[in-house]
Amino acid sequence: MSFRFEIEARDGSARAGRFVTPHGEVQTPVFMPVGTVATVKGVPQDTLEELGIQILLNNTYHLYLRPGVDTIRRLGGVQRFMGWDHPILTDSGGFQVFSLSDLRKVTEDGVMFRSHLDGSSHFFSPESAIAAQIGLGADIIMAFDECTEHPAEYTRTRDSMEMTLRWAARSKEYFEEHKQEVPWFAERSGESQSLFGIVQGGMFADLRRESAQRTVELDFPGYAIGGLSVGEPRAMTCEMVNAAIRFLPEDKPRYLMGVGTPEEIVHYVAQGVDMMDCVLPTRAARHGLLFTSAGRVTIKNARYAADESAIDANCGCKVCARYSRAYLRHLYASNELLAQTLNTIHNLAFYLDTMRKARRAIQRGEFAEFAAGVPLPDAEKRV
Amino acid sequence: MSFRFEIEARDGSARAGRFVTPHGEVQTPVFMPVGTVATVKGVPQDTLEELGIQILLNNTYHLYLRPGVDTIRRLGGVQRFMGWDHPILTDSGGFQVFSLSDLRKVTEDGVMFRSHLDGSSHFFSPESAIAAQIGLGADIIMAFDECTEHPAEYTRTRDSMEMTLRWAARSKEYFEEHKQEVPWFAERSGESQSLFGIVQGGMFADLRRESAQRTVELDFPGYAIGGLSVGEPRAMTCEMVNAAIRFLPEDKPRYLMGVGTPEEIVHYVAQGVDMMDCVLPTRAARHGLLFTSAGRVTIKNARYAADESAIDANCGCKVCARYSRAYLRHLYASNELLAQTLNTIHNLAFYLDTMRKARRAIQRGEFAEFAAGVPLPDAEKRV
Repeated sequence: MSFRFEIEARDGSARAGRFVTPHGEVQTPVFMPVGTVATVKGVPQDTLEELGIQILLNNTYHLYLRPGVDTIRRLGGVQRFMGWDHPILTDSGGFQVFSLSDLRKVTEDGVMFRSHLDGSSHFFSPESAIAAQIGLGADIIMAFDECTEHPAEYTRTRDSMEMTLRWAARSKEYFEEHKQEVPWFAERSGESQSLFGIVQGGMFADLRRESAQRTVELDFPGYAIGGLSVGEPRAMTCEMVNAAIRFLPEDKPRYLMGVGTPEEIVHYVAQGVDMMDCVLPTRAARHGLLFTSAGRVTIKNARYAADESAIDANCGCKVCARYSRAYLRHLYASNELLAQTLNTIHNLAFYLDTMRKARRAIQRGEFAEFAAGVPLPDAEKRV
Repeated sequence: MSFRFEIEARDGSARAGRFVTPHGEVQTPVFMPVGTVATVKGVPQDTLEELGIQILLNNTYHLYLRPGVDTIRRLGGVQRFMGWDHPILTDSGGFQVFSLSDLRKVTEDGVMFRSHLDGSSHFFSPESAIAAQIGLGADIIMAFDECTEHPAEYTRTRDSMEMTLRWAARSKEYFEEHKQEVPWFAERSGESQSLFGIVQGGMFADLRRESAQRTVELDFPGYAIGGLSVGEPRAMTCEMVNAAIRFLPEDKPRYLMGVGTPEEIVHYVAQGVDMMDCVLPTRAARHGLLFTSAGRVTIKNARYAADESAIDANCGCKVCARYSRAYLRHLYASNELLAQTLNTIHNLAFYLDTMRKARRAIQRGEFAEFAAGVPLPDAEKRV
């Protein structure tokens, strides 16, 4: 059994559960911090463990370009490479190919793109993207998809969704034939990775439904909802999640890709989402935006220059236990490395704490009450 | 008693001892990592504690400019400001005024200089520099000195040394009248800071001797040797240390400022030095130069791209315990923040371990043997 998922409690549509991978167990709902090139920027792995982080996301596109799949394969897979003996998920590479690389050319076969690092030419097909993900060796890998641009017309969106479905079938076929090639196959007693499918369909509810139904027909151990949080209003995101999630199986984890704010992630849990990832807590931290139980703190503001209080009086993280806003403001104003490290630790603690509270509320049957206490600050504005 | 120093063991000229300050005890010989603006770049304070670091150096010039003395004073002093309830030493500001600022003008009264941050004009006299250090509240502070440029003629060096002696007397006089103004005076039961004198005298042995003798006449609880490691050959540094240290009292700590490589610090301990500080381990780390028991490692080299071994097989630090050279090389090549953090932790661990071994060797009467095992790699080349 390379993957097991069980639901332990339900409260409305929200679910609390756990899944088991070859590198360990993950309690859901879970927020997965982004460690793009096999590092959560500025935070050592032992600190990630102290924060209670159980699973990280790495970006296939970045690791494929540097240090390269062969290097990581030879070093035993990305878990051993980064000194993280816990679950990792890699994305499909599709989103980055579309958002970061230059001069991409999409055909039925796959995507030709140029590296954002050195302009070199590369090609990802469903087969080669899965081969890359097998070489990297994450516990959960993603089918190669086309992330439909936003906005997009109906016909264009449907054609893109159809291609993603064909690519999903090719991804799965390649994976089934090659999954024993994962670097740690032998040492993990023949366990391998799990390949998740991705629902697309742009901003059209009927396409979301059709994409969900037809992806489920392909039979994956988990399903992601992709192509959202790409600039559309939040109400639209929720509508699309709702359109898709009703057609995903109850007994499989649902992963909403690329979300969200601390308030949003609670509300996606309410919709039945089990897994999320987002660069927001880490990227915002590096820009001095801190999430707290009393709202956002922009730490560079002069008003914090002599503020002896912690970032968040209700936070138990080691940054809040030790450092004042005045110190963190000084570090940020002085462009000091430690600002980025400490800010990131706090924001991750806040996200992890939010998810732990959500999980506990579901287990106690108090989730609606909990979610009501986390109001969405503005219907349209993100962050 | 704001300061106590005791020698526990001697071996040749080398001494092992300890000193006690209002914020705690320090075992000597000690290497003091540099935390310029109240942070050792990229390393959280709990990690500094894990490394066994007992005392940090902060730079008066930098903290005076940002966040400013008043801010740190209001926040209780630099220890509380940076969340480091352990000893801190601040330098006099003299060296940075001479090396970093623009358009300085030196008179008998003091130094007019422009901030390297915004070009604003400032003036440090012995009195104002000591006032700044009292406001910052480090446990050990330094007399305001002129760091004589190198090279300098004999007459110029003698005149500079004479002015430093007059400034030392003024520094002491101001300190004695104002030492109760340290921010933590009341809460530490009337203990205050300790002011150390600084020996100058350039590259002339007779001036070093005279500077030492006349600084000692002013009677400080500790003595620094300044104005070295400014570009002269290492043999000259050793000669100047020797010329001065023989005239410093046995029962007071001796602090050699701004040195050195891991090998050099062992040999300065052999000359009777008790305290040292240097940016080398931290700055070199940020540039990918790692110190190991087998020599230097330039981690960016392609030869480490698939090297599964630790930086140093003989190192017990948490970086060597967890991460491979291949991973550290990847982080450095990818310009990742974590490279700087992990490299710095390792280099500091290596320096601290070197000092612990030196101390133990002195206690066991095996110091000559220990020092012989740490050969100076090249008589002239630094790093």
